[in-house]
Amino acid sequence: MTINLQLDALRSAYRDGSITPRQLLLNLRDKAAALNPDYHLFIHLLSIEELEPYLAALDGRDIDSLPLYGVPFAIKDNIDLAGIPTTAACPAFAYVPQQSATIVEQLLALGAIPLGKTNLDQFATGLNGSRSPYGACPNSVLPEYPSGGSSAGSSLAVALGVASFSLGTDTAGSGRVPAGLNNLVGMKATKGLISTAGVVPACRTLDCVTTFTATAREASQLLALTAHLDPRDEYSRRNPLWNDGSAFGTPRPFRFGVPRAQDLEFFGCPEGPLLFGDAIDRLKALGGEAVELDLSPFLEAARLLYEGPWVAERYSVAGELMEQNPQAVLPVIRAVLAKAPAVNGVQTFRAQYRLQALKALCDKALEGLDCVVTPTIGRPVTLAELEAEPVLRNSELGYYTNFMNLLDYAAVAVPSGFMGNGLPWGVTVFGRAFTDQYLLSVADAFQHRSPAPTTVARNDRARLVVCGAHLDGLALNWQLKRRGATLVETTFSSPDYQLYALAGGPPFRPGMVRVKDGGVAIAVEVWELPSSELGSFLTGIPAPLGLGKVQLADGRWESGFICEAYGLEGAVDISHLGGWRAYLTGRR
Amino acid sequence: MTINLQLDALRSAYRDGSITPRQLLLNLRDKAAALNPDYHLFIHLLSIEELEPYLAALDGRDIDSLPLYGVPFAIKDNIDLAGIPTTAACPAFAYVPQQSATIVEQLLALGAIPLGKTNLDQFATGLNGSRSPYGACPNSVLPEYPSGGSSAGSSLAVALGVASFSLGTDTAGSGRVPAGLNNLVGMKATKGLISTAGVVPACRTLDCVTTFTATAREASQLLALTAHLDPRDEYSRRNPLWNDGSAFGTPRPFRFGVPRAQDLEFFGCPEGPLLFGDAIDRLKALGGEAVELDLSPFLEAARLLYEGPWVAERYSVAGELMEQNPQAVLPVIRAVLAKAPAVNGVQTFRAQYRLQALKALCDKALEGLDCVVTPTIGRPVTLAELEAEPVLRNSELGYYTNFMNLLDYAAVAVPSGFMGNGLPWGVTVFGRAFTDQYLLSVADAFQHRSPAPTTVARNDRARLVVCGAHLDGLALNWQLKRRGATLVETTFSSPDYQLYALAGGPPFRPGMVRVKDGGVAIAVEVWELPSSELGSFLTGIPAPLGLGKVQLADGRWESGFICEAYGLEGAVDISHLGGWRAYLTGRR
Repeated sequence: MTINLQLDALRSAYRDGSITPRQLLLNLRDKAAALNPDYHLFIHLLSIEELEPYLAALDGRDIDSLPLYGVPFAIKDNIDLAGIPTTAACPAFAYVPQQSATIVEQLLALGAIPLGKTNLDQFATGLNGSRSPYGACPNSVLPEYPSGGSSAGSSLAVALGVASFSLGTDTAGSGRVPAGLNNLVGMKATKGLISTAGVVPACRTLDCVTTFTATAREASQLLALTAHLDPRDEYSRRNPLWNDGSAFGTPRPFRFGVPRAQDLEFFGCPEGPLLFGDAIDRLKALGGEAVELDLSPFLEAARLLYEGPWVAERYSVAGELMEQNPQAVLPVIRAVLAKAPAVNGVQTFRAQYRLQALKALCDKALEGLDCVVTPTIGRPVTLAELEAEPVLRNSELGYYTNFMNLLDYAAVAVPSGFMGNGLPWGVTVFGRAFTDQYLLSVADAFQHRSPAPTTVARNDRARLVVCGAHLDGLALNWQLKRRGATLVETTFSSPDYQLYALAGGPPFRPGMVRVKDGGVAIAVEVWELPSSELGSFLTGIPAPLGLGKVQLADGRWESGFICEAYGLEGAVDISHLGGWRAYLTGRR
Repeated sequence: MTINLQLDALRSAYRDGSITPRQLLLNLRDKAAALNPDYHLFIHLLSIEELEPYLAALDGRDIDSLPLYGVPFAIKDNIDLAGIPTTAACPAFAYVPQQSATIVEQLLALGAIPLGKTNLDQFATGLNGSRSPYGACPNSVLPEYPSGGSSAGSSLAVALGVASFSLGTDTAGSGRVPAGLNNLVGMKATKGLISTAGVVPACRTLDCVTTFTATAREASQLLALTAHLDPRDEYSRRNPLWNDGSAFGTPRPFRFGVPRAQDLEFFGCPEGPLLFGDAIDRLKALGGEAVELDLSPFLEAARLLYEGPWVAERYSVAGELMEQNPQAVLPVIRAVLAKAPAVNGVQTFRAQYRLQALKALCDKALEGLDCVVTPTIGRPVTLAELEAEPVLRNSELGYYTNFMNLLDYAAVAVPSGFMGNGLPWGVTVFGRAFTDQYLLSVADAFQHRSPAPTTVARNDRARLVVCGAHLDGLALNWQLKRRGATLVETTFSSPDYQLYALAGGPPFRPGMVRVKDGGVAIAVEVWELPSSELGSFLTGIPAPLGLGKVQLADGRWESGFICEAYGLEGAVDISHLGGWRAYLTGRR
């Protein structure tokens, strides 16, 4: 039996009765059990008895009442599932939680079914998937390569077709590197969007829960369903509503950053530059404009993670166990943690100052860009190479991922192609915090090689059509510029408008009014400003003006100035002049 | 010669020619020099030669071209003024900066004149003003009491009438305690609004530059002039435009938090409860509703500051000097810093986690409140008491101030009355980050005992009048609730509107149209939501609807739904029903 496990396909299968959740989960459980001796993907595969309560909860439920009805998912074993041990890949650390992690509780409430707890680099410390007493995880395509980690088993569960999606975690790349190596979408949403309550911390100030899916569209659906403020997690943050799933909308040209040649690192892999070049071309074909980006402050931030005091965060989780029982912790993890006791408070604060300075530089570099694209990893390494030089090879895997959480950016790893030997190769699209759904829309278009039907809409900035005193250089233009607005387009409205010089003033203001007959095209400008600043701009607009939707010459509708009809009393029709600037010139 | 140094009065004096900047500054210099032997307020008073370039820069300038033309100000001596030593009250630490601090550069560019560098508790570590090798600063009213600190001399400069305003710094209360003790307004704006580039750090993650002024109105003017993003300061943050000076606007009822009786601490001072009760009554008289607040998480955060690892931040500034030359640092400061070397990285991160948890609790407690009022200090202590128990008495002074910067709140200390012995007594009004101008408008009304002419306008939340599918419980209401909106008022429009059922749908939507004749009052609701979320709400509104200004039954204008005239084609006039709910009921 082959069932397409992607969310929409599975829903259709359930709806048309071609399979039931019970049939599917038992089937997948058998398949996972058969794979496990070779792939070591599950630390704990749920027994039939353990699965039963979740299946029973669906009995008699309407499919349409549960957005994730019967969807099988796997859980990285540093995330709690009530009643099942959480090991973090360290048997001596294991405990049985009474309560599931918030994200697991959310998914269960939506109808999803947990298949088991997946293998990981111990304490989520590693990017390769071989650092586990439960066995090394090989790559899903080429077994002489690693799965990537630390969310090793979770990536395999989706790649090998035993789960629709899986949960990982990501502090330095653990949710992205395995996605790149296994032809998956790995979504590391903005810190705080998905609750980390009930997750074993790696670096608590940096940790994110991630998803692995076949497609960006599914990652978007899951994020929209789960990004909620959680009172159990003090690092939880409210998702601005402009970052909800509805971001899939109007197609637009976009500008994406590409690291300078000297910042790109493929560690001698000759195929990397070609594959990356293909990815850039594909983004251009979607309407993207490539802009060179100085990646050096990002890379310096990355080095802070393991060379700096953040290792003390890891030690605060596993240090006590390691001191009491050194053999319980893998030697390679012990070597990482061993640096921690020497870290003092002054060093910690100074590193935080440095990070803050680097973040200011990186934020500046992102201004004017919609997103940035990098390879997900520079060069895949074989299991044999990893064994020979476990620390060096692991750190190479994090070259493009380590800075992300420190700098508070959102990132999505997306499949991009295959190497000559068949190994999957991918890129990562990243951007400012709370642009997650925008990034996913770019990744979705990238996967489909087409901006349609799911297209690129930028969501942390809003566009505004102005036609009067807010035009560039005119009396009220400072209200836009002080909000960080930029002029993106000088154009005309559709030929359906009349322009009036309103009574009163100064400041003298026009009213632009849409009419059924007798309209003309009016000269307008389109400005772009932070969505968060648009509300205060609106608050300052006096009657009879307001903000609604204005149609442009090319047929698009954008937010812009409108005018109530009662306000035209005493106004002068100046439509024949074609715009406010022409009227002002005439008055001088 | 007596000159009123308040900003507007001084400007008038310059304008009518009753004095020149040169005359004033030389006069004030003499006055300061005469005061200094008793009050030790200046560490460095500018010489006539040092003043001259600043005065010369004003020659021939138009008063109206410089918002702070000829305004004398004093600078705490941990803030750089180019060419003059910065000591931080530690002669061995002193250096001569080549460049002024950003805030000083801003003020100079606006026309202000620096009078000198003021005395402080060494390294800004203290709240009393007696910890300086340059002499203890007595209180401006009762010399047996301290000035308060650490911004001791800066408070005296304004209180004793030698400067219009002064700059302080505030990490734990240093900009508020001296304001409370000297009948001044002490404004500790949101972290990052005023640049700290060129300021000797105390705790760099917490430090703020503050102002001392006679009035909240002046503090508002200064903040509006100086709150800019500074590329020199990586902790600098952009001021949302809803937090600019224009917040002084519509009067509104407001809700202010008051600590529970068991959280109030007056350290045995019998007058404190009475004076605080008077202040609460005064806020009520301004239209405020008092709401009991559990202050315990705020107080726990306060204890983290000196009992936790943040002392390592202070050590990172002065520790090296102290190790090399212990005698260079005052014994009481050495005792504070001595705890720092024992602080390790794990402790530092764990304290940051605890702070984050407390902040989540405190933020929750502030939901639904416009601000909180506390005493500025619990009990004034005499210089003799301070000498007897320097650490205990100092820490008592910070009971209501220590938590503010850690929790990222804005605060303004404002004079409230006098004790029986004549010593000034004050309260502090605090609230969420980026509500600075709102807090100042409350403080201004409080000072004037009247909401007019400067009145209370809340600025981090916006009000919105809805009349259709967004009404409570109707089809699109979730768009408001998911943005954290709350229903604040169920009322009617002014009797100037018609309501139409628009063609199309679902969702079925009305258009509310203001008319000159034949209007009626329409049932509406007023919702309040974060200003930062209003923009994305607007973006989602389809033509012909938009947001403009709607007049309510009581005559107020608030932002709300409007409708373009062209959109009424095919619409049905339902004005006679008086509202959308009545229409929906009729359709069923």
